[in-house]
Amino acid sequence: MKNIFFTPGPSALYFTVEQHIKDALKSDIPSISHRSKAYVKMHQETTEVLRELLQLPENFTVGFTSSATEVWDRMSENLIRNHSVHFVNGDFSKKFYTAVSAHEKNADGRIVEAGTHHDLQLAEINSEVELIGLAQNETSTGAAMPVEDINRLRAKYKDPLLVVDAVSSLPIPEFDFNNLDSLYFSVQKSFGLPAGLGVWTFNERCLEKAERLKAEGHYHDSYNSILKIAKMATKHQTTCTPNVLNIYLLGKVAKDMLTKGLDQIRQEAKYKSALLYNLFETHPKLNAFVSEKKFRSQTVGVAEVNGGSETLIQGLAKKGLNIGNGYGEFKNRHIRIASFPTHSKEQIEMLVDEINQLDF
Amino acid sequence: MKNIFFTPGPSALYFTVEQHIKDALKSDIPSISHRSKAYVKMHQETTEVLRELLQLPENFTVGFTSSATEVWDRMSENLIRNHSVHFVNGDFSKKFYTAVSAHEKNADGRIVEAGTHHDLQLAEINSEVELIGLAQNETSTGAAMPVEDINRLRAKYKDPLLVVDAVSSLPIPEFDFNNLDSLYFSVQKSFGLPAGLGVWTFNERCLEKAERLKAEGHYHDSYNSILKIAKMATKHQTTCTPNVLNIYLLGKVAKDMLTKGLDQIRQEAKYKSALLYNLFETHPKLNAFVSEKKFRSQTVGVAEVNGGSETLIQGLAKKGLNIGNGYGEFKNRHIRIASFPTHSKEQIEMLVDEINQLDF
Repeated sequence: MKNIFFTPGPSALYFTVEQHIKDALKSDIPSISHRSKAYVKMHQETTEVLRELLQLPENFTVGFTSSATEVWDRMSENLIRNHSVHFVNGDFSKKFYTAVSAHEKNADGRIVEAGTHHDLQLAEINSEVELIGLAQNETSTGAAMPVEDINRLRAKYKDPLLVVDAVSSLPIPEFDFNNLDSLYFSVQKSFGLPAGLGVWTFNERCLEKAERLKAEGHYHDSYNSILKIAKMATKHQTTCTPNVLNIYLLGKVAKDMLTKGLDQIRQEAKYKSALLYNLFETHPKLNAFVSEKKFRSQTVGVAEVNGGSETLIQGLAKKGLNIGNGYGEFKNRHIRIASFPTHSKEQIEMLVDEINQLDF
Repeated sequence: MKNIFFTPGPSALYFTVEQHIKDALKSDIPSISHRSKAYVKMHQETTEVLRELLQLPENFTVGFTSSATEVWDRMSENLIRNHSVHFVNGDFSKKFYTAVSAHEKNADGRIVEAGTHHDLQLAEINSEVELIGLAQNETSTGAAMPVEDINRLRAKYKDPLLVVDAVSSLPIPEFDFNNLDSLYFSVQKSFGLPAGLGVWTFNERCLEKAERLKAEGHYHDSYNSILKIAKMATKHQTTCTPNVLNIYLLGKVAKDMLTKGLDQIRQEAKYKSALLYNLFETHPKLNAFVSEKKFRSQTVGVAEVNGGSETLIQGLAKKGLNIGNGYGEFKNRHIRIASFPTHSKEQIEMLVDEINQLDF
């Protein structure tokens, strides 16, 4: 039996990727120069279809990095002089906070318990804060922030740059890009690509801030700093030889998602996550880790397992069904199950059946 | 007719890569977690076979970056407090020099004319210099430094870190790792992989220097700084989700090269480059750009084309034979032809025949 990966990233490849890789090999995508016309055309196609999929306005640049982890460093180096606020509710939101701190800036980490999320209506941000960081979908715990809450935060605090980590949720949430300044993700999660590419979108406010910091001598320049990324993006190119194959595949998968229809993909996401949370609520040994329904991720479902998660994970692995263990301190207590666009309703139904039948 | 890429990188895939990609897809390589046992095993296999191929001693770490370009920044941030010397003889050696300068350090660029290389015996390095940078194979011009010259430089100057750019020459030159401190390359050139991975090897002297700079507050920390790379490498892992597929492919290709035999690959490299330079010397419209034979690269042959290179490049492209144009200022005046390990003797013979027959 072929393995199925329900791990929260890297995960199952989007179901069309294998064919796209074969097509890429046939059409010499890995051999074309990243400065050639053929590359420029391909790069432009990818960013345009991604713009359409995400409904990304014209004032946003699509930049590429090696990972979302790189984006945290670039933001620390290029967008913050002194003060940032981070809504931390798990290990990934914490990593951005830690990255900014490591750059010796005053990062203010607002930390709530793992498995919960912040009540943004209560947030108080003072006027010196330059950037607010928020993990819309915290992959380590399965806690997600409703987009409306993000929009309301922005309505209240218009000045600081608002940057959103959507690493493992896109393209499910319907973000309003008029209410945020930067959004980033990596491709090995919901987009179902091989790992090794981060996508960093940002608007002109980010560029203006970077220019100001540069003029003031508070900008750490590097080969992939935001102003260089933006400059090369206007030419549909990157600052160095990028992961060309993945940029090609991203365009193809985004197009496939458009063809299938975002409404359909979002409907399925609702159905699949409902199946998972129903399992977590009805199974005697499982409990949804995120108790507040409003904060439950539709793409990464996390449950506590009475007696530990290892037996269940191993039992499923024997059947070729790979789910994630807990993250960090929850390693042996949690399971994490991705229901990304590539995971069919039938696959999630089968997984739920198998879990119900397993003795663990 | 299937296209053949003789471009100097990205270039033709190593002839086994397509099969390895298919195997990787079958064995779920793109879906495994980069923190899983399966990943650790694979990562270790890749670094071990690479060590064997390069004859890399135990005191060297194998680290991964997104590109060789990234390595320039990391060295600037982590290995130099103030003073570096760069032997510049083309655009790529210049880029490292420029990167260090951009980090506001005193980079001393020793610049010789493109198409030549430095007489290292004449080099004078004063005692404050912390790092010497050298492009063993300057991809922009096809000028290469004999390994013996590098060894002699080291014998004369033992204190500064000696770092060698072998981006487009490995595994052809027989480096003596006891006579250098760091060597880096990217995989889309001689190794014939898709782009999106840099390999950075460094010894304990680099780590000691980094530790000292860190202790003194002159170390720019980032997610992929040298000490973090080294720490994760001891666990056969990376600092963030890497290009897992490429790390897998690198191990497979390095193993294929070992199976074929490095002696054989090096013999073929000599033969293929002899064919190319013979063409450049005998064809009435071509002249080898590197006139001094000692400095001629065995992996990237560069020729000036009387009357400009475009007609020749286009004429070959019509036959499915893709060669590189000149780099930078030489764009329309040069051709650059890769004879990497994947390029067979027969392919180079055919290319030479076609060039001899073409009217340009």
